[in-house]
Amino acid sequence: MEQPKQVDILLRGGTVLTMDAARQVFDPGAVAVRGGEIVAVGPQAEIDAAYEAGTIIDCAGHVVMPGLVNTHTHLPMSLLRGLADDLRLDVWLYGYILPVEREFVTPEFSFLGTLLSCAEMLCGGITCFADMYYHEEEVAWAAVQAGMRGVCGETVMKLPTPDAGSFEESLRYCEEFLSHWQDHELIIAAPAPHSVYMCTPELLEGTTALARRFNVPQLIHISETAAEVEDWLTQTSLRPVRWLEELGLFQTRVVAAHCVHVNAEEIQLLAKYRVGVAHNPTSNLKLASGIAPVAEMLARGVRVGVGTDGAASNNDLDLFEEMRLAALLPKAITQSPVAVPAVEAVAMATTYGAQALHLGHLIGTLEPGKRADLITVCADTLHSLPHFQTTGHNVYSRLAYTAHAGDVRDVLVNGRIVVRNRELLSVDVEAVLEQAKTLAQRINRFFVEREGSVLDKLVDIGGLEQQETFEVQVKGVLQDKAAFERGLAHDQVHITQHTTRDQYDTYMIFDDPEQGRLRYREDHVIQEDGSVQPIYFLTLTGPAKEAEYENSVILSRSRYTAPADRSLRFYREYFQPVAEKEIVKHRERYHLRYKGVDFAVNLDRILQPAQDRLFVEIKSRTWSQQDALRKARLIGELLTILGAQPGDVLKQEYVDLFEET
Amino acid sequence: MEQPKQVDILLRGGTVLTMDAARQVFDPGAVAVRGGEIVAVGPQAEIDAAYEAGTIIDCAGHVVMPGLVNTHTHLPMSLLRGLADDLRLDVWLYGYILPVEREFVTPEFSFLGTLLSCAEMLCGGITCFADMYYHEEEVAWAAVQAGMRGVCGETVMKLPTPDAGSFEESLRYCEEFLSHWQDHELIIAAPAPHSVYMCTPELLEGTTALARRFNVPQLIHISETAAEVEDWLTQTSLRPVRWLEELGLFQTRVVAAHCVHVNAEEIQLLAKYRVGVAHNPTSNLKLASGIAPVAEMLARGVRVGVGTDGAASNNDLDLFEEMRLAALLPKAITQSPVAVPAVEAVAMATTYGAQALHLGHLIGTLEPGKRADLITVCADTLHSLPHFQTTGHNVYSRLAYTAHAGDVRDVLVNGRIVVRNRELLSVDVEAVLEQAKTLAQRINRFFVEREGSVLDKLVDIGGLEQQETFEVQVKGVLQDKAAFERGLAHDQVHITQHTTRDQYDTYMIFDDPEQGRLRYREDHVIQEDGSVQPIYFLTLTGPAKEAEYENSVILSRSRYTAPADRSLRFYREYFQPVAEKEIVKHRERYHLRYKGVDFAVNLDRILQPAQDRLFVEIKSRTWSQQDALRKARLIGELLTILGAQPGDVLKQEYVDLFEET
Repeated sequence: MEQPKQVDILLRGGTVLTMDAARQVFDPGAVAVRGGEIVAVGPQAEIDAAYEAGTIIDCAGHVVMPGLVNTHTHLPMSLLRGLADDLRLDVWLYGYILPVEREFVTPEFSFLGTLLSCAEMLCGGITCFADMYYHEEEVAWAAVQAGMRGVCGETVMKLPTPDAGSFEESLRYCEEFLSHWQDHELIIAAPAPHSVYMCTPELLEGTTALARRFNVPQLIHISETAAEVEDWLTQTSLRPVRWLEELGLFQTRVVAAHCVHVNAEEIQLLAKYRVGVAHNPTSNLKLASGIAPVAEMLARGVRVGVGTDGAASNNDLDLFEEMRLAALLPKAITQSPVAVPAVEAVAMATTYGAQALHLGHLIGTLEPGKRADLITVCADTLHSLPHFQTTGHNVYSRLAYTAHAGDVRDVLVNGRIVVRNRELLSVDVEAVLEQAKTLAQRINRFFVEREGSVLDKLVDIGGLEQQETFEVQVKGVLQDKAAFERGLAHDQVHITQHTTRDQYDTYMIFDDPEQGRLRYREDHVIQEDGSVQPIYFLTLTGPAKEAEYENSVILSRSRYTAPADRSLRFYREYFQPVAEKEIVKHRERYHLRYKGVDFAVNLDRILQPAQDRLFVEIKSRTWSQQDALRKARLIGELLTILGAQPGDVLKQEYVDLFEET
Repeated sequence: MEQPKQVDILLRGGTVLTMDAARQVFDPGAVAVRGGEIVAVGPQAEIDAAYEAGTIIDCAGHVVMPGLVNTHTHLPMSLLRGLADDLRLDVWLYGYILPVEREFVTPEFSFLGTLLSCAEMLCGGITCFADMYYHEEEVAWAAVQAGMRGVCGETVMKLPTPDAGSFEESLRYCEEFLSHWQDHELIIAAPAPHSVYMCTPELLEGTTALARRFNVPQLIHISETAAEVEDWLTQTSLRPVRWLEELGLFQTRVVAAHCVHVNAEEIQLLAKYRVGVAHNPTSNLKLASGIAPVAEMLARGVRVGVGTDGAASNNDLDLFEEMRLAALLPKAITQSPVAVPAVEAVAMATTYGAQALHLGHLIGTLEPGKRADLITVCADTLHSLPHFQTTGHNVYSRLAYTAHAGDVRDVLVNGRIVVRNRELLSVDVEAVLEQAKTLAQRINRFFVEREGSVLDKLVDIGGLEQQETFEVQVKGVLQDKAAFERGLAHDQVHITQHTTRDQYDTYMIFDDPEQGRLRYREDHVIQEDGSVQPIYFLTLTGPAKEAEYENSVILSRSRYTAPADRSLRFYREYFQPVAEKEIVKHRERYHLRYKGVDFAVNLDRILQPAQDRLFVEIKSRTWSQQDALRKARLIGELLTILGAQPGDVLKQEYVDLFEET
C-alpha cells in the first residue's frame, strides 16, 4: 500500500459538487489542496486513504463547491448603496450618482469601497469578480489585500471620469495599469470601454489594441436598455453587437455585461466569438431595463454567468440571489417551468461564470489542476430541510432555491483560507465599516446642503432631463451682415437646417453661485407661413468650468432641462430667485457642417437690453481635450469666414455681457 | 410630573417604522407593550419618560417594525420542499406532489409541517400567515403552539382530498373546524375553496354560507395561470373574477391568491369588493405562471400583500425575498424604475398584507391599540452598510433591497416574545427537524421504489399529461341494435357529438400490478369522406379503486396520457412488459345529455378477439359520492333506454373480459 501524500488542506465529508462536465457529485466526498491548487477530488474514503494534511476542514452537513464567480460589478459603489433608489434612470444617474462620483471618487474611495465589497462577497461565497470602475489600480490592490481573484477593468469612456480628464488620459492610465499587473496570480488587469454609446470607435480601437498587446480580456456593457439599441440603430443602422463585431472588438476575449436586448442574430454572434455574457437580473429589474433572454443564450451555446452589478443598483452583492433569479425569471418569460433548471443556474454562478470571464481553464470547477477557489455551504438549515434524493437534482435545487449567502461557512481562494467558520480573516471589517460610515456622513452632508436647492426643486416638479455638456463655443461681434451671408455660401460650409425664432429669456439668479442659474425661455419659432409656434422650457445650468483656447472657450457644465408647463409667476414664487435678468433676441439658427464637423451657428439681434450690433455665436459638442483643440481651431476659421474679426471675439454669455436697461 | 406607567415590554432605541398612514418614523424611537397590545409608540425620550417595564429590549442598530404578514401559503408543504423542481406543472403535481399527498398527508403531517414552517417563518420575521391545506385543525394547533397568528383555511374542493372523500365531507369538516375556533386570539378558521376549476358552484355556495355564518374570510386561488382563465372563459364565457362576482362570493371577505392574469375590469372588481390579493412572485415565476400586475392593482386601490406560497414551489418561506421581488418585478414589466418603490413593497409585506387578510384593524402597523406583532431587524449588516439619509426613503430601501430573513433578531406575536436574539423560544426546532428528516426518508423510499417504474419511464419520454379520473361507468351487452337506435331518438336524449372510429389497442402488462397497465392505441377516426385520421397515444392507468353501485361501477384511478410519436416496437423494448394483449374494435362514439347530465356512450363491435355480440358502454365524470349515486341511477335508466337489459350488465374492461384468440 502506498504512503499517503502530504497536502496542505483536506476538506472532508459533506456533499462535494464538482461542477465538472459530468456534474459528478461525491457524497461524502473530499478535496485535497496543495499550495494554490486542487490536487484531488473524490469519494471521502479514497481521498482519506491517499492524502494527509496539516489542516483538515470537516464538511459534514455542508456542500463543498466551486467558489461563486461574480461576472459583473462596480465594487467601489458599495459605498453608495441605497444612496437613492426607485428613481428614473436619468434622475438617479445625473441627480445623484454622477454628482457624488465627481465629488467623492478618489483613489482612496476605490480602495475602501473595494475592501467593503470584497468583505461582503467573500462572506457570501464569491471568490472571483469582474469589476469596472475608476482608479482600478486601487481596486486591484484592495482585492489582493482581501485575497480575492478578480478581473479588474479600468473604465474608459469619451467623457471625463474621476480618474481621467479625457479619453486619451484614460487610455494612458489603462496602459500603465495593464503593464503593472501582468501575470499576477490573483489579478487580471483589463481595459473596460464603458459601452458603445459612451465610447468612440477610436477609443474602442485603443482598448482593443491594449487587450491584444497584454493578452487580456476586455469588459464592456452591451445592450442594457432598449433605448441603447434603438439609438444605436438610428445612429449606425446596426445593433450594438453587430456594430462591435464590425469594429473588431470580438477579435479579443470580451466579457459583455447585460445583453438584455439582443436578438437571435446577435446571440449567434456572441456564441460564435465566445463572448462571455454577464447576466445581472436584479439590476436589470431594478433599473427597469428588462429581462435578458438567458434560456435562449444558453441553448445557443453562449457562456452566461451571473453578476450583481454595482451595489448602487442592486443593492447588495449576493450571488445566491442572482443565481435564484437566473433560474426563476426565464421560466416566467418563456412560460416554461423547465427553463434554466437549478443545475444550470448553479453552473452559471460557477463554471459558466468562470468561462464567461475566460478563466475556465483556472477556476469554476473542482478538478485536479484547477486553482483552489472553493466554498462550503451549510446544508442543514431550517430553510432548506428536509432533504430529498428523488430526482438526482435535489442538491442543486436546494442551492438555487433555498440557500442564502448567510449559509456560506468557509471560503478558500487560491488555496488560502480567507473565511473560516463565517469569520473573514483577510479584512478588518470593523475598520472598513467605520471608514465607510464616516464617508457616508460626508456624502449625506453634501446632499443635505443641496436640499432645498434649485436642482432638487426642479427634480420635484418633474419632466427633468439632464445633459452634461462639454462644448466649445465663442461669440463674435458682426461688423457686416452681408459678410455673414457670403460666409454661409462658402464652398466648405454646408447648411443642414435653418430656423428663425424670437427668444424671451428670464434668468433667475440665486444667492449661492454654486446653485447655478435658472433660465425660463419662451422660444417662439417662426413658421414658414409666419405663424408662431411657442415652446416653453426651464434650463438650469451649473457654474461653468472653463478652459480658454485661442478664439474659443471650452465649457463643461451640468445642464438640466425640463418643459415649462406653468407660468413664469409660478416659477418665480416656487424658486424664489434673489434677482432676475431678461434677454430678448431675434435669432437665425443654422446647423451646418464645416470640414466634416457639425456646428450650431446663431445670428442674434439682441432686442432687450437693446444692442445695435449683431452677434454671431458658434458652438460644437466635444468629448476630449484633443478634439476640443481641433474644434477651437475650426471655430476660429469659421468666425473669419462669417465676417467676425478675431478682435471682436467674446467669451461670455449674453446675460453676463449686458447690464439690463 | 406624572408617574411612569407600568407596561410589560419596552423596545427602546433603533429606528421605529410605524407603517401608519403617515409613514411616521421615530429614530431613535420606542414601543411600549402591555399584554397583547401596543400601548404607545413614539420618540424614545417621550416613551422613556412615560413608561416603565420589566422587560426592556435594546434595539440600537435595529429597525423596529410591524411583523411581516405572509398572505398565502400551504404550511405543511415545507415537508415536501425540494421534492421535485423544474418540472412541467402537470408532471410536478400529478407525478410527485399528489401521489405523495395521497400517501403521506395525515393529521400528523399537517401538524409537523406547520411547526417546521412556523419555525422558519418566525425566525424570518413573519408573525401572521394565511394558510390553505388539509387537516387544517392541526395547522391551527401547531400555529398556536408556535405562537403565530394565522388565518387557517381548510381546503375544500370537488375532488377527494387527504381529509375528505367528497366535497360534502369536506364542507362538514370545515363547518366543524370553524365552530371550534371562534373568537380565538391567534387563529381565524376559514373555509378555503380551492379555485374556480376545483370547485362547483354549489360547493362555493356552501363555503360562502359558512363564511357568512361564522363571519370569517374565505381564501381562494384566482387566475394563477393563463390556462385557468382561458378554460373558464370557454366554459362559462366569464373570466374567473367576474364569474365569482356573479356567484356572490365577494359578498364575503375574500383573500384571493395570485391574480396573475386579471384584466382592468377584474382589477376594478377586486377593488370594489375589497378583495385582498396575495401576490406570490417567486412561486409565480418558478411555476411559469407569469407576473401579476401589482403596480396596476395598487394604483386602483386593491390591497395587495405578499405571500410565499407553499415551500414545495418556492422553496422557502422568506418574505424578505418576496418583498424584494414585489418591488423589482413591476419595474421591469412596466418599464418604469419608479414602479412599486421600496416603501410600497414594505407596506405590502406589513400593513397592506394585514388589510388583504381583513385584519387591518388588528395588525400591520405599530400604533397604540393594535396587537403587539412586531419584529426587530439588524440594520448594521455588512450587506446594508453604509447608510444614507438622502431621500427620506433610504430605510425602506434598505429593507426592500438589502435586508435578509437572517437579519431578524427579535419577534413578538400578540405581546409574547417568541424569538429573542435569533433564538426561537416556542418550538423545539431540533425535534421538529429530526421528525421531518425521518419522514423525508420514508418519502424518499417511496420514490426510490417507484424508480424504474413504468410511470417514470413515461415521464422520461415526455409529453405526459395526467388526469385523475373519477368515473361512473358500465358496459351492457346489446341484444338488439335497432333498440339502441330507437333509444338514441328518445325525447330525453340529446346527442351533442358523434364520431366513428377503429381502435387498435395493445395493452402492456407488467409483473407488479401496482405498476398499472400501459395501452398503446392507434385511434383511426373515420372522417365524413371515408378517409382515416389516425391518432397515436399511450395511456398508463393505475390499478382501479372500485366501488360498485346498482347497475354501475365507480372507478377512481390515476391515468396518464402521452402522444405516441414512436413505434410500438420502440415502446415494447423501452417498457419491457411481461405480457401483451390486443383489443381491436369498431366504435360509434356519442356524446349525449340525458336529464341535464353529460354522458359518453360507445357502441362497440369487438373485432379482435372477435365477439358476435355488440356492447354498449356508458361513462360519466363524477366528483363526489352523492353525485356518483345519482349518475349511477341515470346510467341504469339509459341502459334500459338503449336496449341493454339489467341482466346483461358488465363491470369489467374489455381487456379483462376476453381471452385473446
